[in-house]
Amino acid sequence: MKRIADPSVRRLSAYLRFLEDCQARQVPTVSSDELARLAGTTSAQVRKDLSFFGSFGKRGLGYEVPDLIARLRGILGLGRPWHFVIVGAGKIGSALAQYAAFRERGFHVVAVYDTDAAKIGAALDGHRVRDVAQLLEDAPLDHPDIAVITVPAASAQATADLVVRAGIRGILNFAPAPLRVPHGVTVQTVNMATELEVLSSALAHHD
Amino acid sequence: MKRIADPSVRRLSAYLRFLEDCQARQVPTVSSDELARLAGTTSAQVRKDLSFFGSFGKRGLGYEVPDLIARLRGILGLGRPWHFVIVGAGKIGSALAQYAAFRERGFHVVAVYDTDAAKIGAALDGHRVRDVAQLLEDAPLDHPDIAVITVPAASAQATADLVVRAGIRGILNFAPAPLRVPHGVTVQTVNMATELEVLSSALAHHD
Repeated sequence: MKRIADPSVRRLSAYLRFLEDCQARQVPTVSSDELARLAGTTSAQVRKDLSFFGSFGKRGLGYEVPDLIARLRGILGLGRPWHFVIVGAGKIGSALAQYAAFRERGFHVVAVYDTDAAKIGAALDGHRVRDVAQLLEDAPLDHPDIAVITVPAASAQATADLVVRAGIRGILNFAPAPLRVPHGVTVQTVNMATELEVLSSALAHHD
Repeated sequence: MKRIADPSVRRLSAYLRFLEDCQARQVPTVSSDELARLAGTTSAQVRKDLSFFGSFGKRGLGYEVPDLIARLRGILGLGRPWHFVIVGAGKIGSALAQYAAFRERGFHVVAVYDTDAAKIGAALDGHRVRDVAQLLEDAPLDHPDIAVITVPAASAQATADLVVRAGIRGILNFAPAPLRVPHGVTVQTVNMATELEVLSSALAHHD
């Protein structure tokens, strides 16, 4: 299957969350209208997003919740657990290491790394912080799929290079720096300041 | 000016970051090719994004760095400081309260709130955590523009309602819950699990 565009994946992820709520409330079917309202989009967009993966809604009956959950989990790659490492045991790294919602969705922290001798060896939510120099040795044992990079911008590229050498092919980058990676490695960047700028831009032009 | 679509704002924010690097290195002009390479997009996209706000590049000469920085800052609403409150003094809230990159871009934390008596009164990076019940009284004094909501999903909507009653018109939502807000209030949601799902989706379909 072709890689799905980010905005679609984000909507599919939102649909999945609402469908799981429906399942918890034992709601058997949902309409594209309901999904659209919950996800803040249009029912046409919902139908388009879902039809892209084969037409699995029945006109007038809506989507069967358990069926759609199973298909979305498959599309999002959630049919298996994913192992990730966190590189950078600062404030954001520590917060992410303890983020329960990751585990609930099948993302498991296998190790936390840092370069700071003062942090190495410290306990962090059941993980002892390791020296980043160990990553190449550890990776064949821990099999991490994803690295969450929460180091300062200045060391982000060197960290990404190391992570790639360790055979990791997915990077979630919290450092405010662009990362160069070889073909076949996927980088997703989260910039907290950008999130605030989306708001400041909207607020400035609302006035 | 019309509200700019999120993906454009994100790219403009990235261009601004690279232009600021250029300025720090005293580079006087940049081409759309260079901006595209740094931001991971195409030069056609760069020209399109920038031409939307008036044609301010000179063919063959590229963009003048200080001029483009000033224009982008204007577009992103960064010509003035923004005040924000953090509601939820948990791990992510605390990490964000201490995030230096916010201050550097003109986003200032004016107060941190929580509902937990054990946290209220504690010091957090120069802020004493306040009882969220105080928000309505505090807002006319602190003039917050934006609320960063880092409470559990179950209390996110009640928090958003309170924030809106306090006259705040921008919300950055870290709770994994959709928020209903009145017209004129802008919500930006960051879901950490979604970020990982963008990666798991890409990795699953690369194989």
